[in-house]
Amino acid sequence: MEDHERISMEHGAGGEIMNTFLKEAILPLFMKATGEIPIEYMDDSAVIDDIVLTIDSHTVKPVIFPGGDLGSLAMCGTINDLLALGALPRAIGLALVMPEGLEFSQLKTILVSASEVSHKTGVAVIAGDTKVVGNRDLDTPIITTAGIGRRHPFMDANLERAGGRNTRWLSDNNLNPGDKIILTGSVGDHGITILSEREGYGFEGDVSSDISALTDVMDAALARGGVAAAKDPTRGGIANALNEFARKSNVGIEVEETSIPVKDWVASAGEMLGIDPFSVGNEGKMLLAVHPSRAQKVLECIRETENGRDAAVIGIVREDIKGVVLKTAVGGTRILEPPVGDPVPRIC
Amino acid sequence: MEDHERISMEHGAGGEIMNTFLKEAILPLFMKATGEIPIEYMDDSAVIDDIVLTIDSHTVKPVIFPGGDLGSLAMCGTINDLLALGALPRAIGLALVMPEGLEFSQLKTILVSASEVSHKTGVAVIAGDTKVVGNRDLDTPIITTAGIGRRHPFMDANLERAGGRNTRWLSDNNLNPGDKIILTGSVGDHGITILSEREGYGFEGDVSSDISALTDVMDAALARGGVAAAKDPTRGGIANALNEFARKSNVGIEVEETSIPVKDWVASAGEMLGIDPFSVGNEGKMLLAVHPSRAQKVLECIRETENGRDAAVIGIVREDIKGVVLKTAVGGTRILEPPVGDPVPRIC
Repeated sequence: MEDHERISMEHGAGGEIMNTFLKEAILPLFMKATGEIPIEYMDDSAVIDDIVLTIDSHTVKPVIFPGGDLGSLAMCGTINDLLALGALPRAIGLALVMPEGLEFSQLKTILVSASEVSHKTGVAVIAGDTKVVGNRDLDTPIITTAGIGRRHPFMDANLERAGGRNTRWLSDNNLNPGDKIILTGSVGDHGITILSEREGYGFEGDVSSDISALTDVMDAALARGGVAAAKDPTRGGIANALNEFARKSNVGIEVEETSIPVKDWVASAGEMLGIDPFSVGNEGKMLLAVHPSRAQKVLECIRETENGRDAAVIGIVREDIKGVVLKTAVGGTRILEPPVGDPVPRIC
Repeated sequence: MEDHERISMEHGAGGEIMNTFLKEAILPLFMKATGEIPIEYMDDSAVIDDIVLTIDSHTVKPVIFPGGDLGSLAMCGTINDLLALGALPRAIGLALVMPEGLEFSQLKTILVSASEVSHKTGVAVIAGDTKVVGNRDLDTPIITTAGIGRRHPFMDANLERAGGRNTRWLSDNNLNPGDKIILTGSVGDHGITILSEREGYGFEGDVSSDISALTDVMDAALARGGVAAAKDPTRGGIANALNEFARKSNVGIEVEETSIPVKDWVASAGEMLGIDPFSVGNEGKMLLAVHPSRAQKVLECIRETENGRDAAVIGIVREDIKGVVLKTAVGGTRILEPPVGDPVPRIC
C-alpha cells in the first residue's frame, strides 16, 4: 500500500483485501515471531508462555439488536476466539470508549448483557478501562475485549486422536486430508439480522443473531477427541473461514451445499438482498476439522449441547483439489471464493 | 447513576467523578472478585493464575504530536501499567479501529512508532485486530492495547525489604507509614503538550510529551528493593494518583511542592491556561512508595537510568494525616484535592 492511499471499509472487512493489507502493509512493521502461535499465523488467538491471548474491538451498529448487543457480542467473540485455538478461557479485559451524551440506560443494557455472558461461562472480567470522547468524534460506543486462556485440559488426549502436525493447538494450519468438516449450526443469522435492523427491512420469521459463547460445544468436542483445527466464522463468513483453513493447511476442502444449515428467513433475506449467507458473519458458530475416525462421535456429542443442536458434517479435506469447492444443490460444483470483504460492514 | 442520565466527559477523565461512576454504576454489574488482584481494586493491572493483565483504549487527539503519537502512547501506557504492579511485561495485543479515508502514511507513522517501543522493550505484539468504520462515525483512529505480564523476577527480594501488607504485588493499597514517595521525573509534560498542539498555542521552549516505557526505571528500582507500591500518574496527574494511594492504603501523604520537578515551559503554560500541572496526565513517569531504609539507594539507581534522570523524593507517607497535604513553596500547607477529572480531555 502506498503512503498516499487511504483506508477503505474493505481493509477491515475480514476478507481477501484485509488479509493482503495485514500481511503486506501491517505485519512487516512489527517484530518477528514470538511465542508458540505468533502474530504472523493470523489465527484466532496467539500463544506465549503457554498463555493464550486474543483481542478484538467491536463496533457493531446498531449496538442493540434482536438476539444480542455490543456487550454480549464482545464477550462471546473473545471467548470463542480462545476456544477456537483449544484454550480454556480464563479472564477478560474490557475497554469501553463512549461518546459523550450516551444514555446510561443503553450503557447498562450492554454491560448487563456482557456480565450475563461472564456468569454463564464463568469467565470473569478482571481488568477494564473507560474513555469518553466528544459525540461529534464518535457515534456509538466501542468495546474492546482481550481474553486470556490456558491450554484446555482435554487437549492432550484430543490431539493424540487428531493426527495433525500441530500437537499443541487447534491452529488453522492443522487440517489433514480426510478430516471431516463439522459446522456447529446455521450460517448467516448474525449478519442478516444486523443488516435487517439497520435498514429496517422487517423480514418475516424469527430474525435473531446467533451470538453465543461456544464453551459447551468445544468442551463436548474436545472430550470426544480428534479435533485438529477450529475456527469461528465471523467476518467474511464460512466462505472466508474455509478458505483460510485451506490456504494455511495447504489442502483443498470439498463442501456439500445442501448439508450447510441455513434458516429459511436467512435464505430468503439473502436472496432478496443479493447477499450470500456463506459470506456474512456469524457470532455463535464454529467450524471444526475432525479426524474421520472420530467425526461421527464428535458430531453426536456436539448435537447434544445447547449451542450445537443443528451441527452437521458439511465437507471433507482433500489433497487432490485446491481451495474450497462447493458441490451445489443442483448437482454441479463451483469454487467458493474467499470474499473480498464482508458485504455487511460493522457487524462485529 | 439514573437510567435517563447521560455520559459526560468527566466519566472518562480519570478523576473523582469517574472513580465514583465506576464503583457505583459499573462494577456492581459484573461478577465478584476473581484472582489475586481483582477488578474491584481498580489498580493499574489485574492478576489471575499469576498472569498480569491490563487493557486500555487510547483516543488521543491529535494522534501525532511532539514527543510521540497514538502508537507509542498505547504501547508505553500498557507496558507502564504492567510495570506498576510489579510485572515483567511479556506481550501485547493491539486492536485498531480506523475511520474510512485515513491516510496510510499516518497509520504507518503510528504503527512504526508502536513497533519501535516493542523493539526497544522486547515486548512483542502477538495478537491484533483491525476494524474500519465510516468517517462520519469516528474522527481519528483508536488503538486498544492489552498487555500480559509475569511477576517480575526481582519481586520476592524487593518486597521482602518493603515491609508492605501485600507480599506479592505493588498494589495501590500497599503503602506504609514512613515510606518515601519517589517521583521519577517532571510532571505535566504530556497533558500540556497535547493541549498546546490542539489549541495551537505555540509555547516557547522544548514542548514535548514524556511518553516512555519505564522498564529501565522499574528494573533499577526493583533490583535495589524496598518498593511497596507503584503507579503511573496518567489521567488526573499526580494529584489523582497520590490521592488513590492515600485512599486505598488508608494513609496520608505529605508532599513538598518545591521538590516536584516541573519544567519551565510546563509551569508557565499551566499558569497562562489556569491548569495545574499536578492534575494533568503524564505518560512516562512513575510514583513509587519505598521503604525509608532503601529510598535513597533506590533514588540513586533510578537517577542512573535514561527515563529516571530527574527523579526526586517528593514526600512521605504519614498515618497522622488524611489525604494528600502539599507543603507549598511559600511555606504554607494546602490539601491537594483529587481532581474531579483531567482538565485536558482525550490526552490518552
